[in-house]
Amino acid sequence: MLNTENCSVKIIPLGGLEQIGMNMTAFMYEDSIIVVDCGLSFPDDDMLGIDLVIPDITFLKENADMVKGFIVTHGHEDHIGAFPYVLKELNRPIYATKLTMGIIDTKLREHNLINNVKRKVVSYGQNINLGPFRIEFIRTNHSISDSCALAIHTPAGVILHTGDFKVDFTPVFGEPIDLQRMGELGKKGVLALLCDSTNVLRPGYTMSEKTVGKTFNSIFEENKNARIIVATFASNVDRIQQIINSAVAYDRKVAIEGRSMVNIIGVATELGYINIPEGTLIDSELISQYPDNKLTIITTGSQGESMAALSRMAASLHKKVTIKPGDVIIVSATPIPGNEKNVAKIINELSAKGAKVIFQDTHVSGHASREEIKLMYALIKPKYAVPVHGEYRHLVAHAQLAQEMGVPKENTFILYSGNVLELSEEKAGVVGKVKAGAILVDGLGVGDVGNVVLKDRQNLAENGIVIVALTIDSDTGELLAGPEIITRGFIYVKEAEMLLDEARCVAEDAVRRCLEKGITDWNKIKNVIKDDLGSFIWDRLKRTPMVMPIIMEA
Amino acid sequence: MLNTENCSVKIIPLGGLEQIGMNMTAFMYEDSIIVVDCGLSFPDDDMLGIDLVIPDITFLKENADMVKGFIVTHGHEDHIGAFPYVLKELNRPIYATKLTMGIIDTKLREHNLINNVKRKVVSYGQNINLGPFRIEFIRTNHSISDSCALAIHTPAGVILHTGDFKVDFTPVFGEPIDLQRMGELGKKGVLALLCDSTNVLRPGYTMSEKTVGKTFNSIFEENKNARIIVATFASNVDRIQQIINSAVAYDRKVAIEGRSMVNIIGVATELGYINIPEGTLIDSELISQYPDNKLTIITTGSQGESMAALSRMAASLHKKVTIKPGDVIIVSATPIPGNEKNVAKIINELSAKGAKVIFQDTHVSGHASREEIKLMYALIKPKYAVPVHGEYRHLVAHAQLAQEMGVPKENTFILYSGNVLELSEEKAGVVGKVKAGAILVDGLGVGDVGNVVLKDRQNLAENGIVIVALTIDSDTGELLAGPEIITRGFIYVKEAEMLLDEARCVAEDAVRRCLEKGITDWNKIKNVIKDDLGSFIWDRLKRTPMVMPIIMEA
Repeated sequence: MLNTENCSVKIIPLGGLEQIGMNMTAFMYEDSIIVVDCGLSFPDDDMLGIDLVIPDITFLKENADMVKGFIVTHGHEDHIGAFPYVLKELNRPIYATKLTMGIIDTKLREHNLINNVKRKVVSYGQNINLGPFRIEFIRTNHSISDSCALAIHTPAGVILHTGDFKVDFTPVFGEPIDLQRMGELGKKGVLALLCDSTNVLRPGYTMSEKTVGKTFNSIFEENKNARIIVATFASNVDRIQQIINSAVAYDRKVAIEGRSMVNIIGVATELGYINIPEGTLIDSELISQYPDNKLTIITTGSQGESMAALSRMAASLHKKVTIKPGDVIIVSATPIPGNEKNVAKIINELSAKGAKVIFQDTHVSGHASREEIKLMYALIKPKYAVPVHGEYRHLVAHAQLAQEMGVPKENTFILYSGNVLELSEEKAGVVGKVKAGAILVDGLGVGDVGNVVLKDRQNLAENGIVIVALTIDSDTGELLAGPEIITRGFIYVKEAEMLLDEARCVAEDAVRRCLEKGITDWNKIKNVIKDDLGSFIWDRLKRTPMVMPIIMEA
Repeated sequence: MLNTENCSVKIIPLGGLEQIGMNMTAFMYEDSIIVVDCGLSFPDDDMLGIDLVIPDITFLKENADMVKGFIVTHGHEDHIGAFPYVLKELNRPIYATKLTMGIIDTKLREHNLINNVKRKVVSYGQNINLGPFRIEFIRTNHSISDSCALAIHTPAGVILHTGDFKVDFTPVFGEPIDLQRMGELGKKGVLALLCDSTNVLRPGYTMSEKTVGKTFNSIFEENKNARIIVATFASNVDRIQQIINSAVAYDRKVAIEGRSMVNIIGVATELGYINIPEGTLIDSELISQYPDNKLTIITTGSQGESMAALSRMAASLHKKVTIKPGDVIIVSATPIPGNEKNVAKIINELSAKGAKVIFQDTHVSGHASREEIKLMYALIKPKYAVPVHGEYRHLVAHAQLAQEMGVPKENTFILYSGNVLELSEEKAGVVGKVKAGAILVDGLGVGDVGNVVLKDRQNLAENGIVIVALTIDSDTGELLAGPEIITRGFIYVKEAEMLLDEARCVAEDAVRRCLEKGITDWNKIKNVIKDDLGSFIWDRLKRTPMVMPIIMEA
């Protein structure tokens, strides 16, 4: 299917381009494929009832014998969240750093996959050989520890994939990003750079994670008598470390709330990525036994997620924590686009309970801003630039930045998922297209909800449904029962009885007219009912509920 | 119902507090009521299918003989949008400045109310006497011309209502806010200040509208060869004036797109609030006849509204404008919370078509930032502070600001809609509560969609519906037809035939079991079907569609 050429490598993104989320990229050399990341994305507003979204891996399944393994850059859901679904279809070894693998392991255990999947923990600087590929793991900084960039050495040249990164000269845990190795690789020659685009629209540099720790300390200092509750991302282990540091410094115990928070802190502690002095953690059942000035609660829900702990506290639905006047609540996160209103709602609810909500200067991004992205180009000086990890507007701005940094315009590629980009020292271009897209997960169903179902959900959501049920004698063609009108999500029935009576008459008229004309094709009768009742409702209410005639034969 | 007292005045907010939107406040002195503003709000995300939301005016209707009239601060939807609905229930004279009334007139004409409602245009500095109230209209600045603050003179003292305001020393149209009169009133003594809270969380001062004009000029200068399309709020007449100024300066014609944009520019031009040199406007049908460098298009859709012109251009659905590489598109607006994702979507779509999208420095707020609010307190020095126009988090921050500015804590009131706040020189407090709330408008229906219907819509939206239809012989109690299973928004039927067959068997089992037991109460049978089928679907898919059995009798 694919047009190959000597000493060229193909890059085939299967997600992560049209949106921030669902990161997955295949690299192909001759008959070998490796896959970088296996992420999910969260549903858009118009994906009603959908739990999560995973990439379509038809291409990988069709070429299953070529696929050598999965390489993972870091342990965020948009890079690892699709594993439970993808591994069931395509079981291949996973290569990742220690903390990343710890988080993947938790996920595989939940899905009963832990014993069936090969996993290999890799250290920074280590190389993995998979067929013609040698993959080198390079230290970076990000909002989760153990993140890495990948230098993918191929016979056609080196491809550097930054993963999600920032440049943090004073990280909370571990060392700064390995800029030396980037420079060394760049000096030797890098064929292509696949670089994080998330913050390309932000000027300047992203601040160090450590600056947040300073803010925490001053908040703890200024609110010595208050109970302090901090909401942040469960996966931001360094942030949690800093909250714990402040709590210890101000002689407070720490309780953890929220399932994902408990899980990740467990993994990070076990693997040595977080250091909690003995006696600091308390069982959250015992919160009420500690005075306010001796207590810090770390919780999930910084994005306003309706089921998360902070949201339940705000709505007085949390079993262990009752918000009271004087509580200080730190929201240590910026709303991800789309979550602004939910976050505002929770701040309103918490404020109305008398709590003081602080969110300024309590968060820094984990992604490189404009100048850091430039730094990456200055170090790597790639022949080709392929912006990744962004919406289209980010990719466009990133492509312009790459050009400012000296990559020729014709060597800059904005790809769509499914594009096959073939690169060699001599030439480069999109040479084909493979199946790619989004598979919707709803409950246990994977891919059984598509556009037709979503369109129905949208219509039902906005207008409700009007069901017209009737029974016709299959011998005589007479109306035996009904029509009955049943509605849901359409109108408040108790106050619309007259309207619904009229609607019943309209439907009955339609049916009788059809039967008198001798029409026996039920689909025709159904269409007449739909048209007549639809017009009647539109005239009366300017609404368009789904009208659904059901004709039973007896 | 209300506890009255000599020489006290009551403030009864009927909207505008729990949210930004739906502004309406009643002022009551003895047996006279005046109403300030009559706004709508736009539906929250969970108000599925709702078009708009208006305040519950039960209190006003119950005291209809007391209500003297409506006073309007400015012509934005959240201050005038409920008039077509409210006037039908309570027809009272409207008092407003010229442009405000022009916009209200357009609305009343659309709803065939223009001939039945008394309207009086008021100038800045003018006073209106309504029973014991004397209402003075004071010039302010905002993102729409002819905005005003109200000094409501009552026997119990003066109440100053700022309306929506900012301090603009260099407004595009007219004069700066009348700070002198504010100072004079404050010096004489103001009982209460009701002040705009929208931007209380923003430090500093809001920039002058004129700064945006400078940005426009430099964008026009830098993009002399491109077609320039500018999206902004239809009601921001001064912004539109500045776009036209830049277009004229750079020798471009102007086409207007979007119904509300055409309407408001029409009203504003007719009343002299916008000045378009002759020969500048062109019919938008003729867009294709002008070269790119001679054309500017002003359009609605800066909030990513899916039906607005910009959105249709982005989706290639616009009849007259086809976006092409090189087009420069200015989004002259900041997304209102909740609209961020829609705006980003449009920017992505426009970028993907090769357009250059500019949104930095092309907007300033129409609301006072923190220091301007402080200025208002410094001028007015009210006895009581009642923060208005904000969500709870804004009102809380505003109350703290008022205290910093010298208003005693016990004189600061954060109200909920429906609270009756009684004020006199001697004392103040919430003395009662009246009915208040949100009425949902869906199509022509006002108030016929409430919590029950919305809950059904939510459930239908997330899970779809599974209908089980069957006919039972009313004499013998035998199953005559069905059960048939029909689903919408649940699963992709073509690929779930086996599952739906099984579901049919489960339903049939349930029915037969009931009939064999001699159960004749159909509600019992329905419940058994619901339970059995619900469990079956949960076990198989972990989903909870609405299961709706329909039993017909023949």
